[in-house]
Amino acid sequence: MKATFLTGPKQIRVAEVPEPQLNPAGSGKDAIVRVVAACVCGSDVWPYRTARAGMQPRPTGHEFVGVVEAVGPNVKNVKVGDFVITPFYVCCGECINCQRGWTNQCLHLGWYGAGVPGEGYAEGGQSAKVRVPLADGTLVVVPGADEHNEEQVKDLLTLSDVMATGYHAAISGGVGPGKSVAIVGDGAVGLCAVIASKILGAERIVMMSRHEKNQKLAVEFGATDIVPLRGQEAVDHLKEMFDGIGPDCVLECVGTREAMAQAIQSARGGGQVGFVGVPHEGGSLDLGLMFGTNVGVRGGMATVRDYIEPLLERVQAGEIHPGKVFDMVFSLDDAAEAYAAMDERRAIKSMIRP
Amino acid sequence: MKATFLTGPKQIRVAEVPEPQLNPAGSGKDAIVRVVAACVCGSDVWPYRTARAGMQPRPTGHEFVGVVEAVGPNVKNVKVGDFVITPFYVCCGECINCQRGWTNQCLHLGWYGAGVPGEGYAEGGQSAKVRVPLADGTLVVVPGADEHNEEQVKDLLTLSDVMATGYHAAISGGVGPGKSVAIVGDGAVGLCAVIASKILGAERIVMMSRHEKNQKLAVEFGATDIVPLRGQEAVDHLKEMFDGIGPDCVLECVGTREAMAQAIQSARGGGQVGFVGVPHEGGSLDLGLMFGTNVGVRGGMATVRDYIEPLLERVQAGEIHPGKVFDMVFSLDDAAEAYAAMDERRAIKSMIRP
Repeated sequence: MKATFLTGPKQIRVAEVPEPQLNPAGSGKDAIVRVVAACVCGSDVWPYRTARAGMQPRPTGHEFVGVVEAVGPNVKNVKVGDFVITPFYVCCGECINCQRGWTNQCLHLGWYGAGVPGEGYAEGGQSAKVRVPLADGTLVVVPGADEHNEEQVKDLLTLSDVMATGYHAAISGGVGPGKSVAIVGDGAVGLCAVIASKILGAERIVMMSRHEKNQKLAVEFGATDIVPLRGQEAVDHLKEMFDGIGPDCVLECVGTREAMAQAIQSARGGGQVGFVGVPHEGGSLDLGLMFGTNVGVRGGMATVRDYIEPLLERVQAGEIHPGKVFDMVFSLDDAAEAYAAMDERRAIKSMIRP
Repeated sequence: MKATFLTGPKQIRVAEVPEPQLNPAGSGKDAIVRVVAACVCGSDVWPYRTARAGMQPRPTGHEFVGVVEAVGPNVKNVKVGDFVITPFYVCCGECINCQRGWTNQCLHLGWYGAGVPGEGYAEGGQSAKVRVPLADGTLVVVPGADEHNEEQVKDLLTLSDVMATGYHAAISGGVGPGKSVAIVGDGAVGLCAVIASKILGAERIVMMSRHEKNQKLAVEFGATDIVPLRGQEAVDHLKEMFDGIGPDCVLECVGTREAMAQAIQSARGGGQVGFVGVPHEGGSLDLGLMFGTNVGVRGGMATVRDYIEPLLERVQAGEIHPGKVFDMVFSLDDAAEAYAAMDERRAIKSMIRP
C-alpha cells in the first residue's frame, strides 16, 4: 500500500509499504482502518520546513477518517464496516485520565507514525491504511456516514484535529456567553476557533487576519470583526475596540513567540489566553506581565477525543460546517503538493484522499 | 509623626516626617487615616534584602487598618471616626475595571509610598498616619470594630493583603468543592491559601512545609496533609498521593523559579496553577510543558479590594481567623526588628502598632 514520509527539507515521498496487520502480540484491542480521507496539519508544516537533509524517513499524518477493515479479538465497540473518526492520538479510554475527560493525558498515549508501547506500531495517517492500537478507546463510530459524500467527509475529518483544536482554544480561553474574543492566527485552527467561539456564545469575535480568503471564511464562520494588524498596532487596536481595555479572551492559534506575546498583551486585565499553537520557538512567557495584568494562560495539545462526540452532534445537525477549511483536495500520490500548497499558503488546509 | 523607610540593605529607619494633610489641589476625594496596625509583607522582605547601599530612602508598608481622622469635601462613603481596611493599593471604584470587579486593574491605580497621579502623595503604610487619595473607592468601613481588641485587629489587618492574596491564589488556581490542592510556600500567604481552599470547599489540602511552626498553623487552618519535601521529590510524592497524576490545583505562594516549576510539574494534566508569589527572579514559564500537560497558569497581584467584603463577612461570623499568621507584634519604633524577624524566619508575619 502507499504511505507518506518526510525525507528532508520540504521533501515528502509517497512509498510502497506492507499493509498493516492486526498484532497478535498485543492486547487484541487493535483495528485496521482503510483511510477515506486524511489531511495536512499546521504542525506537519513546521517539521516539513525544518527537516534536515539525509534524515531517517519519518511517517507523516495524524488526522484521518476511514472504514474499519478488521478488528482484534478484544475490540468491543468498533466493528468491520464502521465509518470512524480518530483523534490525532491513540488513547485507551480506560485509565484515570481518559475516564475524567482528559484523553490527551492518557497513561497509554500513542502517536500515529509511532505507536503505543507494548501494542506495536501505528502507521502515519497519510497512508492507505492504518493500524489503530487501542481501537475502542480511540475511535468514534459515525453511523450512516457516506464516504462518497465529500462535503460530509470534510466536516467529519475536521473533528480529528483542527475543529476540536479550535474548540480547545476557546474552552481554554474561557470563551462563553456574552464574551469578547480575539483570535490570533487565521489558519484552519484559528478559523475553527471562530466556529467554536460562536457556538459557545461569544458576543464579539475578532479575527486578526491579513489574507482575503481567510477573512472571508472567518466572517462566514461567525467573526464579527476583521483586524488586519499585527504586533503593537494590533494590541493597541484591540484595547481600543473594547472599552480601552481589550477583549475578555484571546485565542493563540499560531505557536510563535510573537503571537503569544501579542495574545497576552491584548487581553484585558483578568482576561484569559487560550493557546493551541505548538510552541515552535521554545517557550517562555512574560511572568511579570502576567502577574501585573492577571491574564491567565491555559491550553496546549487539544483533548480531541473528548470533544468529538459533542461536536459531531453539531455537524450532524447541520449547525456547523468546519469542513470548509479544506479548500484544496489531493490524491495520496500528490501528497507532496498537498504540503507545498499549505507551506506556500495557497491552501488554507489540504485534504488527501487515498 | 513617625514613618518607616528602607535606606539600604537590611536597613530600616523610622524617621520623623510631617503629618499628611488633605490635598486641596486634588479631587477632594482623599482621607487622612490614623494607622491602628500595619504589617510587613513578604514582598517587603525582598527589597529589604536586595536594596543598595546609599539608596534614596523609600517609604515602606502597604497593608494597614486605621481610623479616619479627616475626609476631603467629595468623600461620600467614609466619615471621620470610621474604622477602615485598605487594600494594598489605591483604586477609584468608578472606572470600568473597578466596576467589573478588577480593582487591581483600576485605571487610576495608586500605591502607598507613592500616590496617584493628579491626586498627590500617599504615605507608606508603616507610618503613624496615611493620606488615602481615593478614599471611597479604596477603603472598606468596618462598623463596630474595636481598635483595642488585638485579636480582632489582626484578623481585619489580614484582609488588607495576605488573606485576600491567599484567596486570590485559590480562586486563580480553580479551587472548588471536592478538589485536591497543593500549596507551595508555607509563609503567611500560603497559610492563608489553606484557609481559602477550605472555605472554597477543597477536599484535600496539602501544605508543602518543612517548618514545624508553620506546619502546625497549616493544620489548624485546615490542611489535611503536610509534605516536607521540595523539588523533584516533592513532585513525585504529590503525583503519587493523588492517583499517580497529582492534585487538581497547585497554589504557588513563593515567587521563585523553583517554586513555579515545582507547581507546574506537580499539577495533574489539565490542572491549574494559581500563582501569587511576586516573580523576583525574572519570569519565564516552560511553555512546552504547559502545552503537553495542559496545566493552566493564572494569578498575580491579588484584586484585594474586591475580596475584602466577602472575607470580612466570614471574619465577622467567626468562621475564619487569619489573624493567627501574626505571631510577633512590634511598635513602630521597632520596625527594623519587625523586618529582621521576618527575614530570619523567626516570625511568620510581623504586625506593627504605631
